[in-house]
Amino acid sequence: MGTDRFAEESGRLNDVLNAVNLLVWDSRTQMPTGGAAARGRQIATLTAIARQIATGPAMRDALAAARDEVAGEPETSRRRRAVAAMEDGVAALDRIPEMLLHEAALLKTEAQAAWVAARARSDFPAFRPYLERSFALQRRIADALGWSEHPYDALVAQYEPGMTLAKLRPLFTTLRGRLVPLMQRVLDRPPARRDFLDRDYPVDRQKAFARSLTERIGFDYAHGRLDETVHPFEISFTRDDVRITARYRPNYLPAGLFAALHEAGHGMYEQGIDPEIGRSALATDIVNLYAVGGASFGMHESQSRLLENRVGRSRRFWELNFGLLRDAFPEQLGDVSATEFWRAVNHVRPGLIRVEADELTYDLHIALRVELEAAVIAGDLAVADLPAAWAERMRADLGLEVPDDARGVLQDVHWSTGYVGSFPTYTLGNIMASQLFAAAERDPTVAAGLEAGDYMPLKLWLNRAVHRHGRSRTPEEILQAATGNGLDPEPYLAYLEAKYPLGEAG
Amino acid sequence: MGTDRFAEESGRLNDVLNAVNLLVWDSRTQMPTGGAAARGRQIATLTAIARQIATGPAMRDALAAARDEVAGEPETSRRRRAVAAMEDGVAALDRIPEMLLHEAALLKTEAQAAWVAARARSDFPAFRPYLERSFALQRRIADALGWSEHPYDALVAQYEPGMTLAKLRPLFTTLRGRLVPLMQRVLDRPPARRDFLDRDYPVDRQKAFARSLTERIGFDYAHGRLDETVHPFEISFTRDDVRITARYRPNYLPAGLFAALHEAGHGMYEQGIDPEIGRSALATDIVNLYAVGGASFGMHESQSRLLENRVGRSRRFWELNFGLLRDAFPEQLGDVSATEFWRAVNHVRPGLIRVEADELTYDLHIALRVELEAAVIAGDLAVADLPAAWAERMRADLGLEVPDDARGVLQDVHWSTGYVGSFPTYTLGNIMASQLFAAAERDPTVAAGLEAGDYMPLKLWLNRAVHRHGRSRTPEEILQAATGNGLDPEPYLAYLEAKYPLGEAG
Repeated sequence: MGTDRFAEESGRLNDVLNAVNLLVWDSRTQMPTGGAAARGRQIATLTAIARQIATGPAMRDALAAARDEVAGEPETSRRRRAVAAMEDGVAALDRIPEMLLHEAALLKTEAQAAWVAARARSDFPAFRPYLERSFALQRRIADALGWSEHPYDALVAQYEPGMTLAKLRPLFTTLRGRLVPLMQRVLDRPPARRDFLDRDYPVDRQKAFARSLTERIGFDYAHGRLDETVHPFEISFTRDDVRITARYRPNYLPAGLFAALHEAGHGMYEQGIDPEIGRSALATDIVNLYAVGGASFGMHESQSRLLENRVGRSRRFWELNFGLLRDAFPEQLGDVSATEFWRAVNHVRPGLIRVEADELTYDLHIALRVELEAAVIAGDLAVADLPAAWAERMRADLGLEVPDDARGVLQDVHWSTGYVGSFPTYTLGNIMASQLFAAAERDPTVAAGLEAGDYMPLKLWLNRAVHRHGRSRTPEEILQAATGNGLDPEPYLAYLEAKYPLGEAG
Repeated sequence: MGTDRFAEESGRLNDVLNAVNLLVWDSRTQMPTGGAAARGRQIATLTAIARQIATGPAMRDALAAARDEVAGEPETSRRRRAVAAMEDGVAALDRIPEMLLHEAALLKTEAQAAWVAARARSDFPAFRPYLERSFALQRRIADALGWSEHPYDALVAQYEPGMTLAKLRPLFTTLRGRLVPLMQRVLDRPPARRDFLDRDYPVDRQKAFARSLTERIGFDYAHGRLDETVHPFEISFTRDDVRITARYRPNYLPAGLFAALHEAGHGMYEQGIDPEIGRSALATDIVNLYAVGGASFGMHESQSRLLENRVGRSRRFWELNFGLLRDAFPEQLGDVSATEFWRAVNHVRPGLIRVEADELTYDLHIALRVELEAAVIAGDLAVADLPAAWAERMRADLGLEVPDDARGVLQDVHWSTGYVGSFPTYTLGNIMASQLFAAAERDPTVAAGLEAGDYMPLKLWLNRAVHRHGRSRTPEEILQAATGNGLDPEPYLAYLEAKYPLGEAG
């Protein structure tokens, strides 16, 4: 009966965390402005209740009984993995003292407000004391969680289990070594036509097109919704109710289009989790007290990047689907060809802002952040020296001068909210997306589908190889089983080097 | 420090119940169809957690300490009322055995599904066993809660504290005695013109008009929303975030219009609760484990009926506002006068269906239900004899033959979901609405506002007299303070007798 009680306690935890997810989704898509303060308290109360359930006596008793019951099962059995996930999660929650969490919650509110104000005035000195406290607190959290080689490892592992700085550094060295010269070769070519992207695109029609396109690639609207928001995100309340969002700009078509494709990739991951683990420890991120079915932040990002970039920015995709887009916007796109559109949405240009970066420069932005945040956490770089270090790296990698801190070190919200160690997962997502896509393309049914504009075979392949497992397999195990390799940047670099500079034809 | 801990525990309870309210709101306005089963589990888990908080040791300790601290305060002090409300609520929750709640939850799911199926086929015999079990269970709940004169009293008191069948019976006798002949006098007159009500009214324009009209009468959109749903309702997540809903029929204008006014009345009640009690026991219905600030179901209904009927169906209101409506629907209402519109939306005709009833016949539908449900609960009427009793009463009061049970005893969802004893609150709402409106009109500022189409003085009067108190005053205390009288049907009957038959002028 231990596993029953364990399943029941895990289910209760999952229910509470899914309710938190709804409180968050609503606050970002529906809530009237006046509701913010009360909502913050409601989220805090439910999160505290979730922590009590995870670390409470009922869970410990159930875990102890379940541990004995599953001991004879294979190491990879789902029941055993669920018990292990809860044990590891509870152990991590136990390691962080309540006081530290309390401090982190208070600092987050303060630091985020300070960041908003400092960014608006491009005033790094005003934000510096908050950033120093924020990094100091994250260092204490790293020490509480425990680490052997580098304190950064403890933070990264919250988002990407098993990942370390020692594994990340050679990855980023390889990427920089090949992306910088590739970017240079692209910049030597004349730029493609892009005038039509910022014509007047009525938002209602953008929404309708985003809905039909995401449905076409496999997002299930019987178990999901697509809404508008300021900063697009995906969130779910079990696999049966997955909410994706996009932001539409009336004078820039790609923003809403690719946001919808990106979030649909996240959403299809959650929708594809096996029903039998849909309300279990294998659909719950215990350490972060977050109801999610994806194996890690990086693996989740692999699914969004795969849909957005490997499918949505491919030449074949627009050869097959540009007609539908032109039907939706005949006045705006009547004088544009599929190839012109494809070229325009794959335009490469070094820029100061990460979230506006193209495929070739995006990982250079990440490499910079990973190196700097790891150095600060280790005490090798002072927060006061961040702007200079930032500027130096932007000059070296992207050939750009940083004109002000708003477009430099102040541009991301992450550090102010305590998300130190999450940046690597964006690049890990890119790498895994290409490994998985290369393997999927070797399946003749998938390849034929992509050639014909039928995305169901790809969806089914991803369901089988990635989605269904939820958190019962590590990213490394998923990659090994699906591709025959562990984490490997080669397919990603091979793809970029084959694609750029964009071919001549058309 | 007892009151601090008590406030903290009450606040946690309120937070959890507000999260349940959001889960409910979302399920009725946003949720994809596939999300229903998971949502049901999430609501059940959070409701169980709320019950644990209310009846748990932390609350009992905090209550014991707070009780001593407030003992020296006046009986009507808010702190003392909050402690009393929690004590009474916890005592009631304690009285109902866990097993009975479990049975009720299971039966509700089963009986509601059976009711939907039975109503569709107008098959009372198929529903009868569920209805028998449902009434039997409600009787056991009444016995568990405790009663002295009549078991029905225990059930009614869940929704209207202090109300009893002994108080209700003379009320309904008075109402029937004067409404039946009044209805007869109206039926002797030729019917008013109504052809324009079912023209083609585009739903988007109906929505925009409902939004502007509800804003005009005082609903605050910085702390609220208006959405579409199937069965309109109001629900809140504290006073700072109040959601109202309406259902629009493309070929019948009054449906959406009056639903929005009705729900805005409920919503303004919640928005008007004093901020200091917004997250306390005085904004929580402990017995029903429901986050709500209104004093009782009846008092809540008084606010919706006041806006919908006393304001929204008055001649002056349409003399002042019909121009705005005609501007919104020029093709549909170009040939209609304000007086014609007012007459049309006050059309009286006996009908079989409660939710479609007009002001004069509505309470007759309620009188029938109250008498029958009280008789069944007492064991004086068998469930099997309900259809015949229903038919007899419809014939006697409304002069109508019931052609089938779908349009008779099967029409309401209430009994299948365990809401026995809630029907009287609709009529209590009508009565209290007229008492309060008569008192408000005696305030010259309110009267001048109503004459000029300025509804802010009325809103402020209701804020002061009713809303701000939350659950810190009983309905009887609110009525006494605001009108100088306890519950009294005379102002309601005087209003109806002065209004109907509709005057000749115009």
